[in-house]
Amino acid sequence: MKLLRVGPEGAERPAVLADDGTLLDLSGVTRDIDAGFLATGLDDAQAAYAAGDLPPIRNTRRVGAPVARPGKVVCIGLNYRDHAEETNFDIPAEPIIFMKAVNTVVGPDDDVKIPPGSQKTDYEVELAVVLKGRARYLGSPDEARDTIAGYAISNDVSEREYQLERGGTWDKGKSCETFNPLGPHLVTADEIADPQDLGLRLWVNGELRQDGSTKNMVFGVDHLIWYLSQFMVLDPGDVINTGTPAGVGMAGGSYLRTGDLVELEIDGLGRQRQRLA
Amino acid sequence: MKLLRVGPEGAERPAVLADDGTLLDLSGVTRDIDAGFLATGLDDAQAAYAAGDLPPIRNTRRVGAPVARPGKVVCIGLNYRDHAEETNFDIPAEPIIFMKAVNTVVGPDDDVKIPPGSQKTDYEVELAVVLKGRARYLGSPDEARDTIAGYAISNDVSEREYQLERGGTWDKGKSCETFNPLGPHLVTADEIADPQDLGLRLWVNGELRQDGSTKNMVFGVDHLIWYLSQFMVLDPGDVINTGTPAGVGMAGGSYLRTGDLVELEIDGLGRQRQRLA
Repeated sequence: MKLLRVGPEGAERPAVLADDGTLLDLSGVTRDIDAGFLATGLDDAQAAYAAGDLPPIRNTRRVGAPVARPGKVVCIGLNYRDHAEETNFDIPAEPIIFMKAVNTVVGPDDDVKIPPGSQKTDYEVELAVVLKGRARYLGSPDEARDTIAGYAISNDVSEREYQLERGGTWDKGKSCETFNPLGPHLVTADEIADPQDLGLRLWVNGELRQDGSTKNMVFGVDHLIWYLSQFMVLDPGDVINTGTPAGVGMAGGSYLRTGDLVELEIDGLGRQRQRLA
Repeated sequence: MKLLRVGPEGAERPAVLADDGTLLDLSGVTRDIDAGFLATGLDDAQAAYAAGDLPPIRNTRRVGAPVARPGKVVCIGLNYRDHAEETNFDIPAEPIIFMKAVNTVVGPDDDVKIPPGSQKTDYEVELAVVLKGRARYLGSPDEARDTIAGYAISNDVSEREYQLERGGTWDKGKSCETFNPLGPHLVTADEIADPQDLGLRLWVNGELRQDGSTKNMVFGVDHLIWYLSQFMVLDPGDVINTGTPAGVGMAGGSYLRTGDLVELEIDGLGRQRQRLA
């Protein structure tokens, strides 16, 4: 099932994108796609969709982020071998954790705002994992799978000067306004046969810059959830950005500028398209 | 005005602690002390309190955190000269930013849970600032004052091995379950004559370990809010932990153990008391 939120910013309504491309209204089943719905409502939504109970939505212009008000956005650094190498970092012995402010999350096609004076705003296509269960001191990576609601595309937008040259932790360059386009869909886990076999691609002004596969993650999705659960309690609605493959602007020296068009794609998860503002 | 939330975990009700020590029920004015209330409801609460309209609450056992569901908890590292020196870090040229997961926030007297196997769980008494306004690219520190709802005590509990010895950013040692006791009160800004002249103290099992003053901050509260607003949008209900003075366990080599009693106090903001579990 492909879940999404459509409508003006702050007034999105929950929806399902049917297999035939029709957009269906989910507001009879849940008020929103949020922590409460993800924890308990996915089966009801699936049943209503299968029964043909959802009415169509017409005239929708904007797609929002597919999760409302995530409790946290946890990110994994240097989780693809080729990206660690291109940025001259060692391949990490255990996952690197950092965080983004949750109010960075915007719709998949919303403008990304370059901070005033920024010279090093950069892109990162990433597989986002959205949780439906609580993960707290899991015993093994095998226990992680049941906590996953599904997957989405994430652009972990980063300001490299703020992240690396201004002192302190990476968080400083990760939380600027609009720095986390998410979506368009939250694709439920049952539709993704193998999250470790998905192609990820990113273009800037039509030029392919990132072309990777989740096969090349240093630590896979289940491992990451198990690992994170040793350091924090993960809750339904939380988002994990699982790292980016090679090809970021920082490695090639080409950062984003006002007017640039960034497009992102992950197999089975749709496509994003952002204008830099 | 001293705002607080009382009752069982997850079912707290909003309250005011009157100057005569009586606990008054604020639920006729707001459903909770959260982002929406802080943005628009403080004047109504003040008016109802001044008019004597708030009924007393009896038989309250537990005090919760004074803010429900903060959108983010942003922390400032090494922001007291004596603490930077004791931990052998340089005094930062500009503020160091890191983040705690928001679900670490618990009541001021709730148990703090030592993570399984942890050997280096540590304490940090800090002045927490709670926002009522939005801070986005503020023009100067002078603009920060109007965004402050008030102040509270925060214990920025930290696992030093996770923070410093396990790779990646400090976030890894800052977000374990129960790692942010907050409160007891949110004391509104009008009651604190000078936030840069408050004594902070912390005891472990009755022994005074930290005894500092906000006078010794490297960057003051207004500067921090202005600075943060250049890197992220701060929203009503957000919490900023402004750093800790000297005396942490990491410096003296004495970490917390199960059964330890930690007490914290800041001038005008009350007292916390946690048992390590």
